[in-house]
Amino acid sequence: MSVQQIGEDIHGWARDLFPVCRSITGPGVRDTLAYLTRLMPGLATHAVPSGTPAFDWTVPDEWTVRDAYIADANGRRVVDFRAHTLHLVGYSEPVDCWLDREALDRHLYSLPDQPDAVPYVTSYYRRHWGFCLTHRQRQALGEGRYRAVVDATLAPGMLNYGELVLPGSDPREVLLSTYICHPSMANNELSGPLVTAAVARWIAALPARRFTYRIVFIPETIGSLVYLSRHLDHLRRHVVAGFNVTCIGDERTYSFLPSRAGDSLADRVARHVLHHIDPDYRRYTWLDRGSDERQYCAPGIDLPVASIMRSKYKDYPEYHTSLDDLQFVTPAGLAGGYAALVAALQVIETNTVPAVSVLGEPQLGRRGLYPTVSIKGSGDAVKTMMDLISYADGNRDLLAIADLLDVPHQDLHAMVQTLAAHGLVTERDAGYRTADGGAAGR
Amino acid sequence: MSVQQIGEDIHGWARDLFPVCRSITGPGVRDTLAYLTRLMPGLATHAVPSGTPAFDWTVPDEWTVRDAYIADANGRRVVDFRAHTLHLVGYSEPVDCWLDREALDRHLYSLPDQPDAVPYVTSYYRRHWGFCLTHRQRQALGEGRYRAVVDATLAPGMLNYGELVLPGSDPREVLLSTYICHPSMANNELSGPLVTAAVARWIAALPARRFTYRIVFIPETIGSLVYLSRHLDHLRRHVVAGFNVTCIGDERTYSFLPSRAGDSLADRVARHVLHHIDPDYRRYTWLDRGSDERQYCAPGIDLPVASIMRSKYKDYPEYHTSLDDLQFVTPAGLAGGYAALVAALQVIETNTVPAVSVLGEPQLGRRGLYPTVSIKGSGDAVKTMMDLISYADGNRDLLAIADLLDVPHQDLHAMVQTLAAHGLVTERDAGYRTADGGAAGR
Amino acid sequence: MSVQQIGEDIHGWARDLFPVCRSITGPGVRDTLAYLTRLMPGLATHAVPSGTPAFDWTVPDEWTVRDAYIADANGRRVVDFRAHTLHLVGYSEPVDCWLDREALDRHLYSLPDQPDAVPYVTSYYRRHWGFCLTHRQRQALGEGRYRAVVDATLAPGMLNYGELVLPGSDPREVLLSTYICHPSMANNELSGPLVTAAVARWIAALPARRFTYRIVFIPETIGSLVYLSRHLDHLRRHVVAGFNVTCIGDERTYSFLPSRAGDSLADRVARHVLHHIDPDYRRYTWLDRGSDERQYCAPGIDLPVASIMRSKYKDYPEYHTSLDDLQFVTPAGLAGGYAALVAALQVIETNTVPAVSVLGEPQLGRRGLYPTVSIKGSGDAVKTMMDLISYADGNRDLLAIADLLDVPHQDLHAMVQTLAAHGLVTERDAGYRTADGGAAGR
Repeated sequence: MSVQQIGEDIHGWARDLFPVCRSITGPGVRDTLAYLTRLMPGLATHAVPSGTPAFDWTVPDEWTVRDAYIADANGRRVVDFRAHTLHLVGYSEPVDCWLDREALDRHLYSLPDQPDAVPYVTSYYRRHWGFCLTHRQRQALGEGRYRAVVDATLAPGMLNYGELVLPGSDPREVLLSTYICHPSMANNELSGPLVTAAVARWIAALPARRFTYRIVFIPETIGSLVYLSRHLDHLRRHVVAGFNVTCIGDERTYSFLPSRAGDSLADRVARHVLHHIDPDYRRYTWLDRGSDERQYCAPGIDLPVASIMRSKYKDYPEYHTSLDDLQFVTPAGLAGGYAALVAALQVIETNTVPAVSVLGEPQLGRRGLYPTVSIKGSGDAVKTMMDLISYADGNRDLLAIADLLDVPHQDLHAMVQTLAAHGLVTERDAGYRTADGGAAGR
Repeated sequence: MSVQQIGEDIHGWARDLFPVCRSITGPGVRDTLAYLTRLMPGLATHAVPSGTPAFDWTVPDEWTVRDAYIADANGRRVVDFRAHTLHLVGYSEPVDCWLDREALDRHLYSLPDQPDAVPYVTSYYRRHWGFCLTHRQRQALGEGRYRAVVDATLAPGMLNYGELVLPGSDPREVLLSTYICHPSMANNELSGPLVTAAVARWIAALPARRFTYRIVFIPETIGSLVYLSRHLDHLRRHVVAGFNVTCIGDERTYSFLPSRAGDSLADRVARHVLHHIDPDYRRYTWLDRGSDERQYCAPGIDLPVASIMRSKYKDYPEYHTSLDDLQFVTPAGLAGGYAALVAALQVIETNTVPAVSVLGEPQLGRRGLYPTVSIKGSGDAVKTMMDLISYADGNRDLLAIADLLDVPHQDLHAMVQTLAAHGLVTERDAGYRTADGGAAGR
Repeated sequence: MSVQQIGEDIHGWARDLFPVCRSITGPGVRDTLAYLTRLMPGLATHAVPSGTPAFDWTVPDEWTVRDAYIADANGRRVVDFRAHTLHLVGYSEPVDCWLDREALDRHLYSLPDQPDAVPYVTSYYRRHWGFCLTHRQRQALGEGRYRAVVDATLAPGMLNYGELVLPGSDPREVLLSTYICHPSMANNELSGPLVTAAVARWIAALPARRFTYRIVFIPETIGSLVYLSRHLDHLRRHVVAGFNVTCIGDERTYSFLPSRAGDSLADRVARHVLHHIDPDYRRYTWLDRGSDERQYCAPGIDLPVASIMRSKYKDYPEYHTSLDDLQFVTPAGLAGGYAALVAALQVIETNTVPAVSVLGEPQLGRRGLYPTVSIKGSGDAVKTMMDLISYADGNRDLLAIADLLDVPHQDLHAMVQTLAAHGLVTERDAGYRTADGGAAGR
């Protein structure tokens, strides 16, 4: 299937899941996981009860919302959760009361600078209720009395998440983490879990998978904390690279946010891949972080988790508003994000430390490795092959050599296969490190 | 007392000491030390006899000057030491003779490019006598005979210096060194010993002093050589940071000159503090050195001594002339130098290696560490606190974290205290190194 | 003898050797070696039979050419090897046949963009014959039949090379390698072996030689492979620095190409010397390589071989054409290249790790090391001497100090001798490393 077609598929899945009211807990998460399970039959879902501790945190009560609206004195719904899930502040407590315009206003959220956008507001850890609306809607609300109804339940329940482990021949793991806790928005977040699902399907279909892939679909922050608290030792012993997948569906740019260490395998691979997709990709620093890398890279956890993104959260105008929709996120944007992630995983899968087997330069001519037909660019290929051989000293991995030569890793990987077939190069394991400093399972 | 008031006090002390004829030995040094002892009652004074070896050097004879002048044929003093101490070449040998204008001229020093300035000239290690005057004065001297009188003694005596040790709970030491060997000039040198005296009074008044402070008031070069030759082993085992205090009283700029190593604690702290006072402070290199760091940082001595200055010696037009006076050096200039040094010592005193106590991000909300009132900038403080926590991995000192976040160390120190009070962060000793490579007294 | 005169001498030798038809084997190489032996009486010549393996390569058949031409129907030679050796494709197989204009054309090589240049073409490892001519010549060839004659032999024979070892008091070696396999061209290549010969004569005349010098005159690529395959262990144990000498005779620029490691002694010395000859010298990278450093620096060989050049091969329009002649290469150009190489060897010979013998700054005055007459610049010399002393901490070699102070190594070397004579500085061996990691013979 073409990458273009995959982008179309992902966009279709996003249209299915867009209306679902996700939050950090509740039926929207379960519905989303059920949909994802259809895409990835091996996906296991887990439920963790409210009150369960996770490091410094506690799983909150579950939030279920059935209906919510503001009606005017005539009973006409002027703000209606059924029209857009963003209209209700996330984790709003139940209410049913009449208020005058001024009292109501203290429960309203809008954006004067973006008067046609409904903002996204939550209040997970402080009891509160509220409604979000466009600034134009708000200004159109006349004096008079209004009825505010939130038909919701906030009560002990479950936190749900999904987990897919695709074992490879090597017990060392690559972690993909993405979140499923935002209501109807497209780049942040539906692009994350759905591109991840497409990547997971690509991994599952790999004819010979080298590493083990651990793919988790969790609510942001509390979900990663819960997951880490349950699997920390295993992850520190096995994860050699990880990516937090978010904001990966628009066409505006490519972005990179490093792990806390900044020079892990995930960082090196992400920089390499993005450089060859778009040399002008946006570079962020650890100080710009804002998603689950905050937990994965925290001191004492220290997982090598970086982010390959398109327009980064907090840094595009549509972020956390109703404008972050499926117009902004496109099949082409999703396809680009998918391709970047797949390219990164391909580098990780195929990377080795090559060593030339002969002393001095090998004579490529008598092996037919010089181009026989002189087409434009063939000289460059021979030069690249000789450069590769000159750096194949058994001390650098192929990724480092690719960066020295400024050529895509996959091009060098193909050359290494050719050279190895001629007995000119041997490869050894790239020796990826894990957070506990060892080379797990080796 | 306000820093502004401290600047006024220092300027008053400078006015008292300005007329004193200091040199590397002699009564001017003793008078200055006596004045300093009134400012710092614990100051101990030491006397080292002429002829005492100090590494490659020897303490010179002591120089006492009672009077000096050039008189014309009518007995009128045309150049008079009593008018300005700079008029006499330092360490001039005694003389009383009549010379014609031409012969006299060979003993005169003036600056054609600065015709209203009296230059500062010395001849410590070659027997000589001479007078300094403004170029206008010199040009006004007519033909005829002149009497040159230097009523002085050059004879075995003493080299004097002052030493103040303020013990802390930790035997590791911070060294402050400043010199008292220049006659009536304000930036180079009175700003040095008098800002140091003010800093010493601040240290002495600290309610809980962590480190031991060793503060020396010495004649430049020969004084530091003498001091080092007497205390080298102790200093190499105990000094974790040092500052040579000079040229710290004008308002024109801030300057930094590194230690020879360039990356010692003193260097890191000085750069940090100056960056937050004025990001455009002047950066000098070791090749620009010219004061006692030449001895403190010499091979085999290797003390971590840097310089925080205002206008650096040799790099302002008034340097080593009568224009370096108490108009050029101001209360505000002295206050700024004092504040920079105090800020540096505060960083050294309060610096630790912080480590977050929980896995994953702590939940600040339930501890009331999120701002309750949303004022402008409060979000920045929370972001800074989360950034601090993310880097508090037990591997970096707070100074390194402050530089990563580009915020003042004191702001982070306050946050660490808050976090420690909530049990979220522990601190360990920053592990400052000494020249002998150990962590003295630990 | 002045450097200028040496440049004239080298140019004279080049005029002698220019007409010789060198190739990777054959009588031209032997004639050239015979000429070189007259310049360097100690030069030993070696012969290696065709078919001898050298790592991944095999010594090819020897090529002997007696005559070659294209004649028109009237028997008039229109392209004649006797006019310029470049007219015959190197390693052309014997032929004597009549062809029409079109068939002939498939054996002709010319440069449309440089219509007055005869290109240099070889076919060492594929059987072929051909003629090179200017594009104007080619266009002037009318229709009709032509006779192509190559009176040559391609048969088992010998590969020849020259080797000169000049022993020093120290068994550690400096390698100079240059090639003798190109026909009538001046920068690439006659400048290489002939500047090397002049440098060898300078080395041989050194009154006290510290290091051992190994100087080889080889055919490019196959020659270095043969030489390495015979001496690899010895070279890896002894060579502390090496230079591949090529393209060192024109006046256009200076160029530097690093070893693969990039920071070997040879690299450091070359950069230092070139910086002080011309700060704007051209910097190339390992990716720009193209001569015998490809073999010397290959993985597992790892010799520290860099290149000091004037206009680098492949990067000047005359390269590999008849325009690379003795107008382009000049006495002044050759003298400049010679002087750069000699300066590099002088640095290697005289470099040590200096350590000041006293604590604190020494008192230069009482040793007469301060300038007694104040001439312009004398203060700079004292400052440089004090800077040198301040960095003479026994941890850096003089080359590193020279780079820190940005002064020529030879100036500091002279100062170190003066300081050592006064007992102020001691020197220890610079501890040059070899490819096998040891300090051979020490």
